[in-house]
Amino acid sequence: MLDIPALLADLTLEEKASLLDGSDFWRTQPVERLGIPSVMVTDGPHGLRKQQEGGDHLGIEDSVPATCFPPAVGLSSTWDVDLLVRVGEALGLECRAAEVAVLLGPGVNMKRSPLCGRNFEYFSEDPFLAGELGAALVRGIQSQGVGTSLKHYAANNQETDRMTVSADIDERTLREIYLPAFERVVTGEQPWTVMCSYNRINGVYASQDPWLLTEVLRDEWGYTGLVVSDWGAVDDRPAAVAAGLDLEMPATSGASAAKVVAAVEAGTLSQADVDRAVERVLRLVDRAQPALGSGQTFDVEAHHALAREAATASAVLLKNDGGILPLDPASGGAVAVVGELARTPRYQGAGSSQVKPTQLDTALDALRAGLDGRRDVRFAPGYTVEKVHTEAGPADPALVAEAVEAATGADVVVVFLGLPAVYESEGYDRAHMDLPPQQLELLEAVAAANDQVVVVLSNGSVVTLEPWQHQAKAVLEGWLLGQAGGAATADLLLGVAAPSGRLTETVPVRLGDNPTVGNFPGEHEHVRYGEGLLIGYRWYDAHDLPVAYPFGHGLTYTAFEYSDVDVSVAKDGEDPRVGVRVTVTNTGSRAGTETVQVYVRDPEASVYRPEQELKAFARVALEAGESTTVTLTLDARAFAFWHVPAHRWVVEGGAFEVRVGASSRDIRAAVTVELEGQTVVPPLSGMSATSQWLEHPQAGDWLRGALGGTEFGRMIDHPVNGEMFRAIPLTRLTRMPGFPVSESDADEAAARFSS
Amino acid sequence: MLDIPALLADLTLEEKASLLDGSDFWRTQPVERLGIPSVMVTDGPHGLRKQQEGGDHLGIEDSVPATCFPPAVGLSSTWDVDLLVRVGEALGLECRAAEVAVLLGPGVNMKRSPLCGRNFEYFSEDPFLAGELGAALVRGIQSQGVGTSLKHYAANNQETDRMTVSADIDERTLREIYLPAFERVVTGEQPWTVMCSYNRINGVYASQDPWLLTEVLRDEWGYTGLVVSDWGAVDDRPAAVAAGLDLEMPATSGASAAKVVAAVEAGTLSQADVDRAVERVLRLVDRAQPALGSGQTFDVEAHHALAREAATASAVLLKNDGGILPLDPASGGAVAVVGELARTPRYQGAGSSQVKPTQLDTALDALRAGLDGRRDVRFAPGYTVEKVHTEAGPADPALVAEAVEAATGADVVVVFLGLPAVYESEGYDRAHMDLPPQQLELLEAVAAANDQVVVVLSNGSVVTLEPWQHQAKAVLEGWLLGQAGGAATADLLLGVAAPSGRLTETVPVRLGDNPTVGNFPGEHEHVRYGEGLLIGYRWYDAHDLPVAYPFGHGLTYTAFEYSDVDVSVAKDGEDPRVGVRVTVTNTGSRAGTETVQVYVRDPEASVYRPEQELKAFARVALEAGESTTVTLTLDARAFAFWHVPAHRWVVEGGAFEVRVGASSRDIRAAVTVELEGQTVVPPLSGMSATSQWLEHPQAGDWLRGALGGTEFGRMIDHPVNGEMFRAIPLTRLTRMPGFPVSESDADEAAARFSS
Repeated sequence: MLDIPALLADLTLEEKASLLDGSDFWRTQPVERLGIPSVMVTDGPHGLRKQQEGGDHLGIEDSVPATCFPPAVGLSSTWDVDLLVRVGEALGLECRAAEVAVLLGPGVNMKRSPLCGRNFEYFSEDPFLAGELGAALVRGIQSQGVGTSLKHYAANNQETDRMTVSADIDERTLREIYLPAFERVVTGEQPWTVMCSYNRINGVYASQDPWLLTEVLRDEWGYTGLVVSDWGAVDDRPAAVAAGLDLEMPATSGASAAKVVAAVEAGTLSQADVDRAVERVLRLVDRAQPALGSGQTFDVEAHHALAREAATASAVLLKNDGGILPLDPASGGAVAVVGELARTPRYQGAGSSQVKPTQLDTALDALRAGLDGRRDVRFAPGYTVEKVHTEAGPADPALVAEAVEAATGADVVVVFLGLPAVYESEGYDRAHMDLPPQQLELLEAVAAANDQVVVVLSNGSVVTLEPWQHQAKAVLEGWLLGQAGGAATADLLLGVAAPSGRLTETVPVRLGDNPTVGNFPGEHEHVRYGEGLLIGYRWYDAHDLPVAYPFGHGLTYTAFEYSDVDVSVAKDGEDPRVGVRVTVTNTGSRAGTETVQVYVRDPEASVYRPEQELKAFARVALEAGESTTVTLTLDARAFAFWHVPAHRWVVEGGAFEVRVGASSRDIRAAVTVELEGQTVVPPLSGMSATSQWLEHPQAGDWLRGALGGTEFGRMIDHPVNGEMFRAIPLTRLTRMPGFPVSESDADEAAARFSS
Repeated sequence: MLDIPALLADLTLEEKASLLDGSDFWRTQPVERLGIPSVMVTDGPHGLRKQQEGGDHLGIEDSVPATCFPPAVGLSSTWDVDLLVRVGEALGLECRAAEVAVLLGPGVNMKRSPLCGRNFEYFSEDPFLAGELGAALVRGIQSQGVGTSLKHYAANNQETDRMTVSADIDERTLREIYLPAFERVVTGEQPWTVMCSYNRINGVYASQDPWLLTEVLRDEWGYTGLVVSDWGAVDDRPAAVAAGLDLEMPATSGASAAKVVAAVEAGTLSQADVDRAVERVLRLVDRAQPALGSGQTFDVEAHHALAREAATASAVLLKNDGGILPLDPASGGAVAVVGELARTPRYQGAGSSQVKPTQLDTALDALRAGLDGRRDVRFAPGYTVEKVHTEAGPADPALVAEAVEAATGADVVVVFLGLPAVYESEGYDRAHMDLPPQQLELLEAVAAANDQVVVVLSNGSVVTLEPWQHQAKAVLEGWLLGQAGGAATADLLLGVAAPSGRLTETVPVRLGDNPTVGNFPGEHEHVRYGEGLLIGYRWYDAHDLPVAYPFGHGLTYTAFEYSDVDVSVAKDGEDPRVGVRVTVTNTGSRAGTETVQVYVRDPEASVYRPEQELKAFARVALEAGESTTVTLTLDARAFAFWHVPAHRWVVEGGAFEVRVGASSRDIRAAVTVELEGQTVVPPLSGMSATSQWLEHPQAGDWLRGALGGTEFGRMIDHPVNGEMFRAIPLTRLTRMPGFPVSESDADEAAARFSS
């Protein structure tokens, strides 16, 4: 244990400043004189990317092998909190084995646009879901005595100009959409570190925003850990220290430390601010010690099996016409497998999160193994993955012909399609959401030869489906599934396992439907969050737009019935609780997993509210014919909105519709409950509309009395023009010739009636 | 002539302050001691609303009779600059006759949401069109020696909370959408006065915004007239004077003058600012004198005839299946006229613009007169206009039955539908865009009895058509047509005149498609202009949304062909001119008027640009079989966007598509031209992305040289991760361990290569 108070007393200013900077790309600074060790942090978070000793300084090249679990796009689709805890535990164990103190993740930013190059690292377009799943992963990792870094705080929803762009967002949108996932993880799990984002928010760098890093994060949410910069996110180091950014990474070779020392000496940065940051760095180093040097090892095979389990739960069966899936291993007919991705999987995204897997399954091998000679498996690559297909142009005719030949006469054709690695990466955004045109040409040719087509997709973020999905009887959205994705895919195709994933983001019909048209990725270093609260399904619902597949959607090999839906107010008042009970029955002939989703709708409010918002969910596995009762609780936040002038969450009394369904557009039951809510009484002022005065219990009588008999008294009740007059602030009316109340009378009355 | 310099020398501070305030609701303050008279201003602007002497102080009640021309919603639909000049001349003459110095209009605010209660007073959803038409009206009025008041400056696009709401808009959107109509009228016509709006813009009251009232209006646009407050728009009077608000209206009984005096005495407001405002008031009073006391009269009948001409040109024929219109006066069969609005017209909007007409035509009388007994005209009111139908509920069964009886067996049924006066008014916004449900019930019953239905609409802003328009063979959108609208409607129905109006706003399929869903009218005194540039057709185009009728649409009783489209660059370079020539031929058998529209599309730009934007139009009347060649010129602004960092309009070199069409969705030809454009060289800085450095002609070589051979040199060309690295600002890279360029080297290089 470090004696932190003693160390703070002993450290020189120069040493303190040095502690706020890295010692290299991945390590904190040691102070050998006082026995303060260095600890190592490592990219992730769906696996460890611990750089080989002697690797490049940018840390993109070779790293030590680690289990590559599905990235967040996959993990999140499981909607499985328990599974994410177990994956987290495994990740924590691998950190211990690698002597890594902090795994740099998870990222809980919202998927604002389908084009964001880093969407594969994020959980959802819904803040509640992202918060619950992010919390589970953090809980698992930290249970091993290893830290996490909740990132990228905040409003980092694009890669374009990520180091300079200002995300221009109003406060309510920040509070209800872009911050809640962070809030959930911070308040529930206290991640050891929070990583600030590169971007600015409303003009202020996240790395030096006292509102973001101190007021909200610490004063409101009670965060006690350390704030670390994203790598290279610091603009003005002393300002960042003052704002609450404790540790800058990577090392600046002493440059930042010198600026900190100079600022303290110049009196523009307080010693207390420096000490506060140093104390947090020391606490991090201290809490990391027990897990380090423990000689921990992990079971590589067991972790691969867990990666396979996670991948199996991650894939989403979007359609399955005529029950073409699962394939019957015993049916005897030939299975044609088309697409290089079956042999050369794309299983994670590009950028800082790239893990070197301990092993790598392919779907082609796994299908062959699973069928074990019972059915003939023909393979044709159809396209290459090396070549970057960003432009329309002919597919390779020889590869297409070979694929058509393989498909011809087969019982079923499984076509593997997906995005090339260069389409989506940290560091830049996509330009469109289409599959490479050459792959679609291949699909068309294959489908013309054989209409029993199953498409398996590999992509880190949504792709356009409408133009081609009619050519497929089934579409299995495989996202990026990690190192065991090949085996998992084969399990799902062959019915060894049943699909259970659900969409955590809407699949729009076309890019042009998405809420950020014209507002993404911005220009001249500003991006306008013009859609406000309406990201993802909130947008498609508000505009009543058709979608290819809605948020929450996912099929399996059986079906479920919902019955006995019961919604009741368990506790009313300022801090309400509403209980939701529903019986779910597996009405099919196979075991399967259903994800019950609860959305809340506020049909009438003093502010604009989305049509519905996800507020609870539960995953239940049921044998054929089995029933279970799911019980969920909605708390105050499930009904609240952020009241900007009152600066707090408010549940506005009245009716709320609690909607229970299997997806955001498959609501099986809606029950209305009445809640008392909390009263926000806006104080009267001279600039309050006259209608507000008239509606006020005491002020109304006073004002009507004062106006009675005058032409103004007549005007406020005028059938056509009355509403116009009542909308005028009282102060403005007092200035009109002949108005019987003076401006100072109005001010005096406002004070009297508001007290 | 007032000797203004001498007066400024003679006036006391108290007298000066008094001149900045009204003397009553409608008059400026006189200073009898120095012979400074008072002048009168009057509401409008589609007619004079000069209050009766002794009327109420709020000026909503009785006014002296004046010709009620169609309000802007009608006038604008003519797309007829010459006609608007003539209407303006007539209005100016009526002002002279009434001893009115300034007519308070026109309003050139954008129709941002279909729900804005005051849309009937505005011209368009397109800034170019609104600017051209507003300029024409101002030109006409001011040609009579009478002033106008260009209003409501600026960004007053809703009535809800109009006196307190902050319109939160980014600069480019202001410059390209919300300001250009003002800019066009100010720079081209120098309206005597500009009226500031009630609202705030980005938190600052328009009435005290120095950027708006001085920097943009005067310094950039060269405005020389007077700025007057909207009635009651002043918040802080001394701040308003300093910002450039000259005249406060209405009178504040000396309260504001006292504040101005106190501020000058306290030194918080400069004497120079006061003098500047006083000088402008005196100039206004002075320039008004020649037209006053001239004993002018006007020809009431001639103005009514002009109002009828304008109304005829204002109506828009939306559909005309099977050529049901025009009705043949000689065909003999009975004409059923259904709907109280045929007898009791709604011809203008509610609020400050309400004119007391010199006479009032009704469509029913005019139809009877036009048919002159040749066809039987049956009338049934079908509904009442007194009753406010805001809720679903049964229509009056007796009235419906009577209408069905009238319709049964008639050759044709002309159904007059429209919005009740209380649906749209200054002072509040609409809650929906539907016709009263009782009217639709009536239509359904009538259409079931007789499928030869023509619907004539009376409404000040768009209504939902989709749910019912299949029941009508023709729909004539009559907007609000002023006092001669009844006769004009009959002329159009009977083919005495041919429809020639074109939509100046999109008719969306449904309210939920409109760009302001979730962003109108805002809450807690802020409204987010989240759609940015994408208002009106710009939105529907960007989202590729179906519309009921597109911007620019309008049918007539003949057809037109476009040929020989020629687009050529008349002048290239910094200030280009592009000529557009098109031959238009009336291919039908009747005379008619076509409105040729030119849209510009910038297919590739460094900023987001709308799909297309209206940049020129011309109205041509052609006899049957006649051809004419229309020649139009596009100037630099037609191709430019507002470059925020460069703070100016920029034509970016490259290809532009010039699209010639009969509506925004009926493009008949598109020609691509290449323009040299203007080069904006963004200066390099340390925070410029590394890619910008590499693309720079000199700096690129320097940086490649410095990085050559290092791991960073390899990284910037990495096939997958290279783009991510190149996106990093150079300064941030310099801080990375081992980077071969220091931060100060980068700063020094930026200075060197940018000079």
